Amino acid sequence: MSARVPCFHVCVTCRAGLPLEPGGVPMGALLHEAMAALGGPVELRGVECLATCERGCAATISMPGKWTYLLGGLRPEMAGDLLDYARSFAASKTGTIMPSRRAESLKDMILARFPAYDISYQEAAE
Amino acid sequence: MSARVPCFHVCVTCRAGLPLEPGGVPMGALLHEAMAALGGPVELRGVECLATCERGCAATISMPGKWTYLLGGLRPEMAGDLLDYARSFAASKTGTIMPSRRAESLKDMILARFPAYDISYQEAAE
Repeated sequence: MSARVPCFHVCVTCRAGLPLEPGGVPMGALLHEAMAALGGPVELRGVECLATCERGCAATISMPGKWTYLLGGLRPEMAGDLLDYARSFAASKTGTIMPSRRAESLKDMILARFPAYDISYQEAAE
Repeated sequence: MSARVPCFHVCVTCRAGLPLEPGGVPMGALLHEAMAALGGPVELRGVECLATCERGCAATISMPGKWTYLLGGLRPEMAGDLLDYARSFAASKTGTIMPSRRAESLKDMILARFPAYDISYQEAAE
């Protein structure tokens, strides 16, 4: 994880509760592709299952010193809004971005937050 | 966070969707108290709001190199089962404990998982 830009972990196996034809591409993978195609000041990592399948597509956003957020109900067409959100996230002190500061499509996406990656972890791991 | 024992972040402001009388103690605080009273090989941290209020009481369990899990629907009387779960979590390679290896009360508690705190973060932060 870069310390300078937010990291999105996007679940690339998520079917968002929809049936998947044999050989079909999961919607999570399409979301990941859409974000990668747009690019931006983020680190993008695919991950297999965030264990919140019934509320997918799902992703997390994290950056040292800020709350990590779990995002759900995502769709590939939200990729641009998500990258805008990442810019706000990066510029914020704690990672908290109120719904009024997010695109309309992202108003209900927050499923949970996790405590920040912090110095005490780093110290303990050394 | 200690590298040697799992860390529980317990939301101590969670009301679990129930009304709270003025001066009453939130159920999340009672859960935290119950876990602290039992003790065990865990680090216990209170945290204000994990932003998953409608699925509380909520907590996370984390340890370097393992998936972080978001747990919901917790109650103070599950404290002992949660500490047993923490022992299994600590002994596991990835942090994944199948429902069949958890106490009956904890069968449905997993709300999501987050990627492990990892070396790449540590490197980036140095």
